[in-house]
Amino acid sequence: VPNQIITPEIMPKLTVRNARKAPSAVITGIAPVVDAGCHPVKRVEGEPLRVEADVFKDGHDQIAVCLHWRRCGEHSWQEVAMVPCGNDRWQAEVVFDEVGRYELTLSAWPDAMATWIDGFQHKLEAGEKDLHLEILEAGILVEGAARRARRSGEPEVARELVSVARLLPELDAESVAEVLFAPEVASILRMWPDRDLETVVEPYLPVVVEPLVARFSAWYEFFPRNAHADGRTHGRFRDCVPMLDHAKNMGFDVVYFPPIHPIGNTHRKGKNNQSVHEPGDVGSPWAIGNEQGGHLAVEPELGTVEDFEWLVGQARERGLQVALDFALNCSPDHPYVRDHPDWFHVRPDGSIKYAENPPKKYQDIYPLNFHCDDWRTLWDEVRDIFLFWIERGVSIFRVDNPHTKPLAMWEDVLAQVKSHHPQAIFLSEAFTRPKMMKELAKIGFSQSYTYFTWRTTKDELTEYVTELSAGPERDYFRPNFWPTTPDILPYELWNAPPEKFCARALLAATLVCNWGMYSGYEWCENTPLPPKEEYLDSEKYQLVRRDLGDPGICDFIGRLNRARQLHPALQNPGGIEFITSENSEVIAYARRSEDGQSRMLVVVNLDARNRQESNIHVPLEYFGLDGDSPYQLLDILDGESYDWQGEVNYVALDPTQRVGHLFEIRQPL
Amino acid sequence: VPNQIITPEIMPKLTVRNARKAPSAVITGIAPVVDAGCHPVKRVEGEPLRVEADVFKDGHDQIAVCLHWRRCGEHSWQEVAMVPCGNDRWQAEVVFDEVGRYELTLSAWPDAMATWIDGFQHKLEAGEKDLHLEILEAGILVEGAARRARRSGEPEVARELVSVARLLPELDAESVAEVLFAPEVASILRMWPDRDLETVVEPYLPVVVEPLVARFSAWYEFFPRNAHADGRTHGRFRDCVPMLDHAKNMGFDVVYFPPIHPIGNTHRKGKNNQSVHEPGDVGSPWAIGNEQGGHLAVEPELGTVEDFEWLVGQARERGLQVALDFALNCSPDHPYVRDHPDWFHVRPDGSIKYAENPPKKYQDIYPLNFHCDDWRTLWDEVRDIFLFWIERGVSIFRVDNPHTKPLAMWEDVLAQVKSHHPQAIFLSEAFTRPKMMKELAKIGFSQSYTYFTWRTTKDELTEYVTELSAGPERDYFRPNFWPTTPDILPYELWNAPPEKFCARALLAATLVCNWGMYSGYEWCENTPLPPKEEYLDSEKYQLVRRDLGDPGICDFIGRLNRARQLHPALQNPGGIEFITSENSEVIAYARRSEDGQSRMLVVVNLDARNRQESNIHVPLEYFGLDGDSPYQLLDILDGESYDWQGEVNYVALDPTQRVGHLFEIRQPL
Repeated sequence: VPNQIITPEIMPKLTVRNARKAPSAVITGIAPVVDAGCHPVKRVEGEPLRVEADVFKDGHDQIAVCLHWRRCGEHSWQEVAMVPCGNDRWQAEVVFDEVGRYELTLSAWPDAMATWIDGFQHKLEAGEKDLHLEILEAGILVEGAARRARRSGEPEVARELVSVARLLPELDAESVAEVLFAPEVASILRMWPDRDLETVVEPYLPVVVEPLVARFSAWYEFFPRNAHADGRTHGRFRDCVPMLDHAKNMGFDVVYFPPIHPIGNTHRKGKNNQSVHEPGDVGSPWAIGNEQGGHLAVEPELGTVEDFEWLVGQARERGLQVALDFALNCSPDHPYVRDHPDWFHVRPDGSIKYAENPPKKYQDIYPLNFHCDDWRTLWDEVRDIFLFWIERGVSIFRVDNPHTKPLAMWEDVLAQVKSHHPQAIFLSEAFTRPKMMKELAKIGFSQSYTYFTWRTTKDELTEYVTELSAGPERDYFRPNFWPTTPDILPYELWNAPPEKFCARALLAATLVCNWGMYSGYEWCENTPLPPKEEYLDSEKYQLVRRDLGDPGICDFIGRLNRARQLHPALQNPGGIEFITSENSEVIAYARRSEDGQSRMLVVVNLDARNRQESNIHVPLEYFGLDGDSPYQLLDILDGESYDWQGEVNYVALDPTQRVGHLFEIRQPL
Repeated sequence: VPNQIITPEIMPKLTVRNARKAPSAVITGIAPVVDAGCHPVKRVEGEPLRVEADVFKDGHDQIAVCLHWRRCGEHSWQEVAMVPCGNDRWQAEVVFDEVGRYELTLSAWPDAMATWIDGFQHKLEAGEKDLHLEILEAGILVEGAARRARRSGEPEVARELVSVARLLPELDAESVAEVLFAPEVASILRMWPDRDLETVVEPYLPVVVEPLVARFSAWYEFFPRNAHADGRTHGRFRDCVPMLDHAKNMGFDVVYFPPIHPIGNTHRKGKNNQSVHEPGDVGSPWAIGNEQGGHLAVEPELGTVEDFEWLVGQARERGLQVALDFALNCSPDHPYVRDHPDWFHVRPDGSIKYAENPPKKYQDIYPLNFHCDDWRTLWDEVRDIFLFWIERGVSIFRVDNPHTKPLAMWEDVLAQVKSHHPQAIFLSEAFTRPKMMKELAKIGFSQSYTYFTWRTTKDELTEYVTELSAGPERDYFRPNFWPTTPDILPYELWNAPPEKFCARALLAATLVCNWGMYSGYEWCENTPLPPKEEYLDSEKYQLVRRDLGDPGICDFIGRLNRARQLHPALQNPGGIEFITSENSEVIAYARRSEDGQSRMLVVVNLDARNRQESNIHVPLEYFGLDGDSPYQLLDILDGESYDWQGEVNYVALDPTQRVGHLFEIRQPL
């Protein structure tokens, strides 16, 4: 029955075989791998990857183990010797300096010279007299190394080794040991080992190296059409510079725009998602396409593609990257409907099927049929949309609802895009079941939206962040925490006070390395449209009035983002440990940089309405503190400093003064 | 550098693709697998294998998931529908009735009919009126099923379905639902699904199904040459029937013989492993080969190959299987030395290298060079030795020191042997580092010696047995517990009283499903050869005197083995749970059969010299007992019964009366 199989491009690994000789060593238990090597391990430029494996062989031979890596497409490998770390486990570290896709493998072989040295040493120590055969055997090993050096174009090394080999039979055992145990000779011999019995892992293990922003970023989302924020005037790209400055002032490094394409007219949604619209209603930017164009066009009210490119340039001058929404939603007016009706689901009467989740109907959207007969062309078109915008200066995409499109398409398209533009990164906007969210990360998304929006208690936050930072997810799933989005005003923030907004921002910005804030959050917009977790008068369907002069919590947000930039502890995804706080309304966690030099302690009052006190159990060992000496904590949000000592210390958090502490541990180191 | 690679025969798995269409579902997280499918999962005939996987697809479609399996070499697959068990996990169970190697795979596809039914139901419930397009769509789906039925040679089913399809447009929505939701129609439609978008897992997952004795066995080891046990007369195969009866009376089902081949003369070891022997010394059976032959011959003092076959027949008549030692050790007199000197390590002076572990020398043994140029012939010879003895009635082999020979050779040879004789099983005698021991189990050994011999405390036993029964090992590593072997009299048993021998046997026989006893244990032979953990006057080098008329602890051993045979709880490797006993000298554990019908509670006094008391915390839920009703325990070693109630109950174990309880939980169920 299963007869429609092709072999996938990348397949998982196994200890494999040497074709010329019988195989020798076993290499297994390689880490890190994602799904046995089906999917790449993720790193960013300059981030070390420590590879470990169980390597052993039968009998008493010494073995040599090697880690090899190369950029995909390159021919030659780089290699580094792996070192044993006990219980047959070996390790080595590699750092990838450039973005791109890499592959790595491991190999091992019996190290005949090391085995000989080991045996010879034992026999010398035991006082054995007749070692002439052992010395002849050493000569043969050294001659082998000479032969391999010569073959590799090192005639001088070869000559040197030959003279060593010829010298040996003239010497007594002690002198042989002196010659061959000498570090300079040993290291030359190690360079020309006999790899006849080498075992190599295949298929190779994939690694994808992305730009730093994939691991560490702060996003600010705003609607360019709302640049005036007067609730009336449709903003244009050319009006957006004040918004860029606003984002920059708050310390963000990515500005993200909802779709900028022409918006459909047919069944255009009215204010508050009403099924009919009134004249002048701007419609949802996620209903893409009309007679002005589709995914390669720009809504004329925003300006032109050139205006957009100009705005991207303005952002870049300010050190901001622009992220674009990538939503494969077509309005009934999209050019694809006319040009490629076969890309949609066609009904028995020849009409095109609109989106539905029975009995709900979404008549303003025609879903694409990614499994249509012409699927290859359609998938290539998806790729080309990415390439088009990358050529216009965008290399970050927030992909809308990727979980409703085939995973195989994303794997194919994202890999193609990255093979052209390895600096491109993709944020998966999938609020769905956990395994689907993880799979999207495995198959190519660089960052992922998360359940943070609904994780509010200490237990929920602890469990969730521990899973993401210490589980297998850490090698492929990069969480991006958003307190709100245009789609979601969570119950937790309904009519909530500014202190709650501060607390949630503090959590988002310090629990993980990527976070994002949707415009309006800085002014604590908190009016819901019950019973849904949505905003009343949502910007998705209308222009909204905001007062850009209102300070709101902008200053707090700015301090947060600057703290993130200054402290490597907040940039290290694995460097988090939840610590005991005796009050369930107070959460506390330690952050640490890879090298342990940067150390932060975060304490947040989860109840933003009342003063909460707690004893905090400082993880002294984690911070490299001894139990006796005092140490200083500087709250980098307000500049106050504290002297603590020992493990248990006391905090009081009165929301009218502060919602939490963001402590730098200052001394002693 | 890594340029000597061949693609292994079996490679691990990945969700794969449909070549004709774009792929759809994701299948991942398959369990059980061993090293991502590099190595087979093990089962025995009749033992169920429950397969689980994460299966999902983009969007809201319903999916169908299927498990497929077949014997390797067969063309057609059997299949069973998998059922969802929450959180995108699916499961199905398969039972293999015959020994052999199998492969299995999983597939999934969008179930268009189920998706249609689901949507139609919702629309009906929402009171939608105009459903004529939906009904036409159903007709198209039913016609598709009809087409597939016709193509598969089911014209009648096809005709029926066509008539259903033609009927539909005539009906109103309610009647359409009545027709299509009817179980008999739905089940026919399910038989002819549209698998155009099927995703199939490849490579297939290997499963090896072995005879029952691989999972559940009790071994008795004796030296046929000691059949007279008078310390003087060399026994012959024809003298061994009383020993078979002795083993049978104690309830064993496998009798295992050390090597039966001609023993080398050159550097033959004397009594107590002395480097020189005296005239008449019988030598170690593990130094194989002399002018009388090698691994295909029988030591003439034991008789002939025909005598051996006769003895195997005698054993079989008694319900005993014979296991043979398989030791690839060649004495300097082995015919291979003359016929295949290139199979050994040759030194620069042309001599053959004897075994050594510098500075130790083993001049009575020449190790084979399994990586010699003629390795393929040598490996085939190893295979042929197995085949030779299998043809003479032996299908169980205890393989000596497999960890000093290439793992790749075992993987190759054992697979070849099993492809001819799938009933053959192999016990790995590797007392070495943990990862090597596990790897040997992965690559083909059916059972493994363990560290049990040196695990004596409650914590050690608990930790070790928990690892073996509940860790990933459970799918490939079958422990065989031996309190002693001819090589090992552990410190624990040096000069130990019979009670200690009983306690260790009770543990070995009830902690795991395979155990073995080396002759002499039943008479509590306990004299060591300090400082080594070996026997004084070991049978390995001489004939020994024993009194077969001495009852020793034979009766206790017999009760143990019969309890194992009668109680399925003791035959289920995964069915063990360690329970709280408040005294550290008293270990207690629960055993349970797969179906929960058979329930045992084992309590052992680890201090065989003193009375020990303890409260035992009975795992009521594990046993299906409620907290209120009393239950009866029958000690099946001595027939005494006890009435207990609730969780905590008291035991007192006085070694002069009993070393432990082997309780059957009798009621209520």
